[in-house]
Amino acid sequence: MKSDVTQTRRLPKYRQAAEYIENLINKGSLKPGDAIPSLRTLASTLGIGLNTVRDAYWDLERRGIIITLPQSGHYVRSREKALKPSTTAISHPTEVSLCRIYDQHVNRVKSGASAALSIVQLDSQLWPSWKSMVRWAGQLPGISEQRLLEYAMAPGLPVLQKALARQFSLWGLAVEPETILITGGCNEAISLTLGLLCKPGDVVVVESPLYFAFLSLLKHLDVQIIEIPNHPETGLNLDILEFVLSRQPVRAVLCSPNFSNPLGCLMPEDHKLRLIKLARQYNTLIVEDDIYGDLPHRGSRPKPLKAFDLEDRVIYCSSCSKTIAPGLRVGWIINKAYFDALAARKTMMNLASSTPSQAMLAGFLESRSYDRYLRRIRRIISGNCNAIRQVILREFPQGTAVSSPQGGLALWAELPREVDCGYLYDRAIREDILLAPGMLFTVNAGLSSCLRINIGVWNPRVEAVLIRVGALAREIAATTTGAH
Amino acid sequence: MKSDVTQTRRLPKYRQAAEYIENLINKGSLKPGDAIPSLRTLASTLGIGLNTVRDAYWDLERRGIIITLPQSGHYVRSREKALKPSTTAISHPTEVSLCRIYDQHVNRVKSGASAALSIVQLDSQLWPSWKSMVRWAGQLPGISEQRLLEYAMAPGLPVLQKALARQFSLWGLAVEPETILITGGCNEAISLTLGLLCKPGDVVVVESPLYFAFLSLLKHLDVQIIEIPNHPETGLNLDILEFVLSRQPVRAVLCSPNFSNPLGCLMPEDHKLRLIKLARQYNTLIVEDDIYGDLPHRGSRPKPLKAFDLEDRVIYCSSCSKTIAPGLRVGWIINKAYFDALAARKTMMNLASSTPSQAMLAGFLESRSYDRYLRRIRRIISGNCNAIRQVILREFPQGTAVSSPQGGLALWAELPREVDCGYLYDRAIREDILLAPGMLFTVNAGLSSCLRINIGVWNPRVEAVLIRVGALAREIAATTTGAH
Repeated sequence: MKSDVTQTRRLPKYRQAAEYIENLINKGSLKPGDAIPSLRTLASTLGIGLNTVRDAYWDLERRGIIITLPQSGHYVRSREKALKPSTTAISHPTEVSLCRIYDQHVNRVKSGASAALSIVQLDSQLWPSWKSMVRWAGQLPGISEQRLLEYAMAPGLPVLQKALARQFSLWGLAVEPETILITGGCNEAISLTLGLLCKPGDVVVVESPLYFAFLSLLKHLDVQIIEIPNHPETGLNLDILEFVLSRQPVRAVLCSPNFSNPLGCLMPEDHKLRLIKLARQYNTLIVEDDIYGDLPHRGSRPKPLKAFDLEDRVIYCSSCSKTIAPGLRVGWIINKAYFDALAARKTMMNLASSTPSQAMLAGFLESRSYDRYLRRIRRIISGNCNAIRQVILREFPQGTAVSSPQGGLALWAELPREVDCGYLYDRAIREDILLAPGMLFTVNAGLSSCLRINIGVWNPRVEAVLIRVGALAREIAATTTGAH
Repeated sequence: MKSDVTQTRRLPKYRQAAEYIENLINKGSLKPGDAIPSLRTLASTLGIGLNTVRDAYWDLERRGIIITLPQSGHYVRSREKALKPSTTAISHPTEVSLCRIYDQHVNRVKSGASAALSIVQLDSQLWPSWKSMVRWAGQLPGISEQRLLEYAMAPGLPVLQKALARQFSLWGLAVEPETILITGGCNEAISLTLGLLCKPGDVVVVESPLYFAFLSLLKHLDVQIIEIPNHPETGLNLDILEFVLSRQPVRAVLCSPNFSNPLGCLMPEDHKLRLIKLARQYNTLIVEDDIYGDLPHRGSRPKPLKAFDLEDRVIYCSSCSKTIAPGLRVGWIINKAYFDALAARKTMMNLASSTPSQAMLAGFLESRSYDRYLRRIRRIISGNCNAIRQVILREFPQGTAVSSPQGGLALWAELPREVDCGYLYDRAIREDILLAPGMLFTVNAGLSSCLRINIGVWNPRVEAVLIRVGALAREIAATTTGAH
């Protein structure tokens, strides 16, 4: 047995261990639902370290081959369809149109329908408590409490700029605090940025699928967009991007290299370097949305594109809405070249962001508990992700493929082609269940059988809703198949 | 003596009493600096009530004839020049240009130079305390503390909408809570509104002098503006406005009928009715900025224009930045016709305003202490106003005229024509004193000898700064006069 692992020298050990298990499954020795050997057993069988086996099982799990049940063990997953990378792109500039349910969806979100599956958001029970936030804000060094009610004019509250800069330096982004422009959330960061950069008719390249609020913004700006497919694992397809950039001037590329919403893909560092190079070569700018960057499901915090950006071509936008609390409405922009123009725009728009909110975030970061907090919520999100994938694979129509996100707060399910998720949306809304169907995430018609599902909240109530959605989808699948 | 008052039947009694004192001054019986009879003495002399004499002295003070020193008495003021209503208007549409110091001024405000005279803002010592704000927010009925960190999506936090609607109903503005759109301050309210209404090249009518941040916004929107002079007492000159409206289509009139910044004038109710009528007749919209409406120096809270608006032609904008605390960044818009479009724009721009901020304001209003609070700060502002006027009249060059604002947080001083307040600004900034010279408030060259002065903060330190500014202005006056 030991020879199996030691002789195949090409693969890293953990991959060899993973292949060993895969072979057992492929030969039929292990069947769907079977328990696979414990970490300890396999380590001893193969004569390798526990950590190597752990890495192997993580790899198998990420690829949808096994599933880990907390306090139980590892099991062979029912054979599932993998999410296929799409290569269809809208490679010609297109006007932005919003799908038929766009406004309805936004209004339903506001109305507080059962939106736990639809809005991508961390369970509010996991956030720091209001009382802690208030206490931290009041304890900021060198700031009187009354100062917390005064203007914190753009670029923002200095103590927050400093706390953010320190945090960024921990994962490889070196910035001077005073060059961080505080905004009213990541949406405001991106709307200020694109509003500054774009004239009507300009071409903006975006990822596909794309977070839908950006479509509304791009439509408002009256720009033309080109959608480039995101690979489910590595993000933006850079070959297609290069092809597009070589054909016409592009004002900006809007993308989210770390755990893009909704796919959760992570652009590898060599791709990030190539993307920067392409931006220089074709003289365009990159608007980076890093709002999910702090939420890898495993491993360390990936560097943002901005960390590789020596020429200041990246305008970095992020916020604390996905990691800490969206109600604060605090985000930020980092870019030196456009700093003054963006600060002037922020001043013109609303002078400043809420000082209490800025102080609460600064206080939390200063309390030095953010890293511990992040470790905890990452673990929970990763657990939710596994559990929700399992329910989808069990309850949704046969042939449903689900993304294996490397981070972030979303799962992306691709239902069988005959299930129109627009119709599923209509059916679910009658039961006061709000869904985020694929059509929200594109201007083309290609994602009609897809669904984005939030993994930030998971409890028996949400599970019941998800199971109900699965039943509705199966009904639709059955009806549609029957009708053919 | 008694016959003097009772025989002149045409004038109200308090005016007759005021004339009695004026006559004594005009005949030379009372000289500048002399004490005038106490309230009690004059009441007994003329056989009228104490309140009537109080009204008479208020009238004399408002007209700059006497001055009241707290805990001392009433004195004849040195003969001062009255602020003359201007009738010059830019009656043809003009592109917006910002004066040479615009950017510098904005940046200096941010840098925290000695700006107590320059920024129009209430002393932060008078605001509710941070601790009270936090406590009130936490006590909001039916809202868990954790809810205070969640999104309060546009249109806004319902408990704040309700509290505002109740407050508005107290002074004659009846609105349904759910039609109040919460924004990130009054600036955001107005930038959302004008951004929605205006295309490049549209004509917008504004007051002159005009709060300078709006000039920056109007320039950004690439509209043409027409400046209509504000009368120091009654606001917008409606004859000129009608002339302008009859000559070309006007997209919107941006004005502040209650205590316009910087003049502090109050549009009488019959003017408000006429303004509404003009808007209907010439088919235009009115963007009303009511941010100072809660700050009359005397008498009751004036109704906003919106209270007379039966056809929904007024888009009402305001905030708590001048009355409670600017750092909250909470404002609001009221207009039914444009509600959906404005809410969509707010959502696109930044989704929502800070929930902690909205909750703090709602909590303060719900605590029912706002009215008492307002009475207190109005009294203080009115006292500041008198004291600051006196210092200006004493310390500034001979011939300086000062506004007699009926409300709000600003004084407007018109120095002798030979004093260029742009030059005064340059001189003062060398001593780290930030001023707001007239050129900031117009696109024409007509206000070069004017200065806006904040009356929200008054203490010995600010007084010393004001005296120093007076000395600089006198130096400039002397030099300029000498050179001729």
